[in-house]
Amino acid sequence: MQINLISDTVTKPTKGMLAAIMSAKVGDDVFKTDPTVNKLQTKMAKMFGMEDALFFPSGTMANQAAVKLHTQPGDRMFCDKWAHVYNFEGGGPAFNSGVTSCLIDGNRGMFKANQLSEIITGNRSDIHAPFSRLVALENTTNKGGGACWDFEEILRIKKVCTENNLAFHLDGARLFNALVAKNETPQQYGEVFDTISICLSKGLGAPVGSVLLGSKVHLEKALRIRKLFGGGMRQAGYLAAAGIYALDNHIERLAIDHTRAKIIGVALQNCELIKHVEPIETNIIIFNVIDEINENDFIDRLNKAGISLISMGQGKLRMVTHIDFTEEMLEMVVNTIEHI
Amino acid sequence: MQINLISDTVTKPTKGMLAAIMSAKVGDDVFKTDPTVNKLQTKMAKMFGMEDALFFPSGTMANQAAVKLHTQPGDRMFCDKWAHVYNFEGGGPAFNSGVTSCLIDGNRGMFKANQLSEIITGNRSDIHAPFSRLVALENTTNKGGGACWDFEEILRIKKVCTENNLAFHLDGARLFNALVAKNETPQQYGEVFDTISICLSKGLGAPVGSVLLGSKVHLEKALRIRKLFGGGMRQAGYLAAAGIYALDNHIERLAIDHTRAKIIGVALQNCELIKHVEPIETNIIIFNVIDEINENDFIDRLNKAGISLISMGQGKLRMVTHIDFTEEMLEMVVNTIEHI
Amino acid sequence: MQINLISDTVTKPTKGMLAAIMSAKVGDDVFKTDPTVNKLQTKMAKMFGMEDALFFPSGTMANQAAVKLHTQPGDRMFCDKWAHVYNFEGGGPAFNSGVTSCLIDGNRGMFKANQLSEIITGNRSDIHAPFSRLVALENTTNKGGGACWDFEEILRIKKVCTENNLAFHLDGARLFNALVAKNETPQQYGEVFDTISICLSKGLGAPVGSVLLGSKVHLEKALRIRKLFGGGMRQAGYLAAAGIYALDNHIERLAIDHTRAKIIGVALQNCELIKHVEPIETNIIIFNVIDEINENDFIDRLNKAGISLISMGQGKLRMVTHIDFTEEMLEMVVNTIEHI
Amino acid sequence: MQINLISDTVTKPTKGMLAAIMSAKVGDDVFKTDPTVNKLQTKMAKMFGMEDALFFPSGTMANQAAVKLHTQPGDRMFCDKWAHVYNFEGGGPAFNSGVTSCLIDGNRGMFKANQLSEIITGNRSDIHAPFSRLVALENTTNKGGGACWDFEEILRIKKVCTENNLAFHLDGARLFNALVAKNETPQQYGEVFDTISICLSKGLGAPVGSVLLGSKVHLEKALRIRKLFGGGMRQAGYLAAAGIYALDNHIERLAIDHTRAKIIGVALQNCELIKHVEPIETNIIIFNVIDEINENDFIDRLNKAGISLISMGQGKLRMVTHIDFTEEMLEMVVNTIEHI
Repeated sequence: MQINLISDTVTKPTKGMLAAIMSAKVGDDVFKTDPTVNKLQTKMAKMFGMEDALFFPSGTMANQAAVKLHTQPGDRMFCDKWAHVYNFEGGGPAFNSGVTSCLIDGNRGMFKANQLSEIITGNRSDIHAPFSRLVALENTTNKGGGACWDFEEILRIKKVCTENNLAFHLDGARLFNALVAKNETPQQYGEVFDTISICLSKGLGAPVGSVLLGSKVHLEKALRIRKLFGGGMRQAGYLAAAGIYALDNHIERLAIDHTRAKIIGVALQNCELIKHVEPIETNIIIFNVIDEINENDFIDRLNKAGISLISMGQGKLRMVTHIDFTEEMLEMVVNTIEHI
Repeated sequence: MQINLISDTVTKPTKGMLAAIMSAKVGDDVFKTDPTVNKLQTKMAKMFGMEDALFFPSGTMANQAAVKLHTQPGDRMFCDKWAHVYNFEGGGPAFNSGVTSCLIDGNRGMFKANQLSEIITGNRSDIHAPFSRLVALENTTNKGGGACWDFEEILRIKKVCTENNLAFHLDGARLFNALVAKNETPQQYGEVFDTISICLSKGLGAPVGSVLLGSKVHLEKALRIRKLFGGGMRQAGYLAAAGIYALDNHIERLAIDHTRAKIIGVALQNCELIKHVEPIETNIIIFNVIDEINENDFIDRLNKAGISLISMGQGKLRMVTHIDFTEEMLEMVVNTIEHI
Repeated sequence: MQINLISDTVTKPTKGMLAAIMSAKVGDDVFKTDPTVNKLQTKMAKMFGMEDALFFPSGTMANQAAVKLHTQPGDRMFCDKWAHVYNFEGGGPAFNSGVTSCLIDGNRGMFKANQLSEIITGNRSDIHAPFSRLVALENTTNKGGGACWDFEEILRIKKVCTENNLAFHLDGARLFNALVAKNETPQQYGEVFDTISICLSKGLGAPVGSVLLGSKVHLEKALRIRKLFGGGMRQAGYLAAAGIYALDNHIERLAIDHTRAKIIGVALQNCELIKHVEPIETNIIIFNVIDEINENDFIDRLNKAGISLISMGQGKLRMVTHIDFTEEMLEMVVNTIEHI
Repeated sequence: MQINLISDTVTKPTKGMLAAIMSAKVGDDVFKTDPTVNKLQTKMAKMFGMEDALFFPSGTMANQAAVKLHTQPGDRMFCDKWAHVYNFEGGGPAFNSGVTSCLIDGNRGMFKANQLSEIITGNRSDIHAPFSRLVALENTTNKGGGACWDFEEILRIKKVCTENNLAFHLDGARLFNALVAKNETPQQYGEVFDTISICLSKGLGAPVGSVLLGSKVHLEKALRIRKLFGGGMRQAGYLAAAGIYALDNHIERLAIDHTRAKIIGVALQNCELIKHVEPIETNIIIFNVIDEINENDFIDRLNKAGISLISMGQGKLRMVTHIDFTEEMLEMVVNTIEHI
């Protein structure tokens, strides 16, 4: 049995999802005539109480389009030092938008409103510094181990944004994990952020695609940017159908992934080869092995037992639970850790 | 009966193709572990005799990645004044690559080698002009009405490129139409061009995707650029499976689309409302209505008969035949034109 | 005696100008505290009846800043196919601004309002085309041989800009030549254009510098862009002092350069080695040698007589008269041409 | 008496320098025919033992050109978190080059070789991260209070660059202050760095200009980039003449500025309103006032005594000594501080 805990992006469609794909009505989405894509977009906009939505081939493109539509070259974006948009999108903010990233030294990928307000004070008119234009959060945080933001802190950051005329974007690649874990609603987020990207191909289990949410004005810009990036696809309804199915069927079950992640976490904490396990709030487990052993050796041992995971660098290892990770697999993982 | 002649991008998968999609083995292509994507890439690279291939969500992204990998900001690209990469990709060469397009005044989207050599003479060392770096052709030409390049002229242009150290890219969105119409081989093109983009979702009938072909060095760059554009998709194997099926089953049948396009062309030439029909070499029909009537009126009349087509601007109308356009539909279109 | 007719940029300050440079009061212009730079800027803004002005190290940077401040990446600029901003600024619009240049096929660097309106019709909402944002004229036209625009045509183009919400920039590198030749006023131009760049180091005879004119909002953006390009200079008052002197002393005398250019033109027309002389309206003379002789041979013969000139490519040669080109030199040039 | 300690950029030419400016032989540097610019470039290249040199209107442009010539969009540059190129050039690396800045948490603007090697390990082939291409140091450090790098540490960083195929740029805006303070030679630096920018208008006292040093291949690229930024100036020899004079006359005297800065530092340390004075190695003095008083109040008090200085933000104040700051002024400053 092969157990892939590398990421929640590795999942394959369930039978129900495949059936939804097969029976999808499609059209040419470049001409905006794919009914299933349109349905997905309308559904998600309504779900979050936002004006409009646009389907993208990836979360990276949805985030990059958001950075682009809020900024002009020479502007500055504020985000946590661990933010996906800075660390794992190839340098996209500079490449695609000419935007300088100003990193905030947060905790597990999350910073405080006062950290933001301290940095931006007084430099809007100084031409030596880039123009402050955008704040981007990520919830849950990937590099932060699936940590969930305190919504009250988000509201305080929103206040700083409003006072300083800064746009506010949420990289919600795994937002549904946070909503389930914290018992929050999409509408809460839709009210606070100017734009939100949601990934359908992580915990939700669809094969491909992300959706960007925002106002009609922002999404009109996003459509043009998607064209420029080459993200316009033709009969994208097959992919959108999987997304709709996922929204209807795969949200509540994320709680199962979270429970299983915590069970693995307990096993790791009891393992004498493990030095530290980060708090587990959702479906991501980040931990360090003890100094006496090499992290690659540890990975090798699990690989031999059929379990895949990845290194995050600097001694950190990561496992991610997901829809294809079953109860049986969980037992095997826990068992392997106990006897390693 | 609705007859859509707007573009060959509007087609829906055949039953066989849908079955291929359903039975596809998939993985996470961002980790390069999707076996069907890998199979498609290997298949196409072999078909064209080129080192490597990479799957993209669109032909626009494949072309833009090619422009990017061959150039640096401040460089100059030469193409026909009707080239898709200049006219229909949103201004991508300037936006994505900082590249200036130098347009050549060709015929039906095709220029001559001596037109190119006249322009580039002597200006490589002059810092007032952008640095000449890339030549891009399009075959068949979209705005040129599906015209096919003379391969001998392509060889002469290649010679100019070699002499001037210019990269050579082919926008082969509809290359298979040219190969079928002119009885040419993929290998011929693979030998001449540095990079070639091939669209799977036009005449070939797949729902989504294009492939970029080139050397390993170029494709390594393309992979990084695709990441930056946000073109990396997860279980893309479903889309690739459709592409493989199309390559196996839909190439030879393009001849049928060509024949049907010519039959429509004859009907149009015999229609007294039509002033001029461009030569029809493949599946695109471009024509002008007489001055006495308005082109939108003409479109409306066909729309009422259930036939969709588009304006290309400046009095030109376009119809495109494709796999979903049947013999029965052909009869109805011809009949409608005869009695308009 | 060396006679340099390569360009009007080769001039050296007169004694009066040098004295003005020496006695200039200077400060640190990056802190906006250089009184002479401030004086020049105020003087020019008033002269053209525009809100504000900014000093730049070159006309290229002034033009590039104007393109940048009016546009966003992915936009489109319309200009004549011979425009300096497209041909001689290194590909700057694409490099600095991600802007696609849409070239209009004008006459001697000047197009008609209806040529513009034909092109822009209907494509603002089509995401396949770059977004139409800016029209840029050049007066006098460099590559067009110092030709002067018909002001009535400029007003008609302005109307098209207003109707289509397009910004309107003037590359006025040699605008004072046009003003003198056509008896026009700076205010006329200040009323019509959103931004105007004026070069101090061409016909006006200052060693370095250009000024960009526009509204306060535009110039605030220009200041930030100048910083990003690295165009902020410290004690720039020395250069500004030369500019102020030139504005006070060197405008009316441009008529002399124009007269001398016409006298050379007559001599060239009477020379049997010359096939064609372009109309001479200001200080630029463009001509072709007959097919029987090589243009480089002709240049060599003049060089041997101590006269420098340049080739514009495609058989065209160019001479430019200027403040350092004296009556004595004129006689020698005419004499040389007569006896060549 | 007005005493300006805001920056060493505020200086005005001495009589000797003004005489050098007035007697300069000039030409058109865009055509590379300005003998004084050529002389300056040759002189500096020789001084540093580097192949070539190029004159720029500002240090910002020289640095931005260096970043550009070493990188491609999507690349990553490593520098200290206080580096001028990241903090005070308007966001230029992202704007001009599409380059992501990766900041290292150094001490007074200076980091250690092992801090660099830890960050870059292993991520060259990972397309999620920007491609590591360039390391940039600043010596002396501006925001670090004129601190001088340990040359042995620079050599260790060079080793990391070589091992990782990274280009190595020095922002030497105030390098001559470091050379004088540490008794180092230009050649030492010329041997280690790929490119070096040197400012003529800071401690050296020229009114305008910086020089970029490097190999012929790099400087050819720099010339093209300077054109694109609009940094080509015409009779720039007047500015270059001041630079040559400064190199001949103003280097050794920097020691005086350093001594005076240290004397002010002692006065500040003895002042009960001052909490902390940073170590003073060259001509920059950075200090904090005590928590009980407001930094702007302190600035106001000095302003009333005719002394100008600036805030660096976060409670830090800065004074900079320079050629226009005399012994008499020093006494007055010390006296004012003692009696504040």
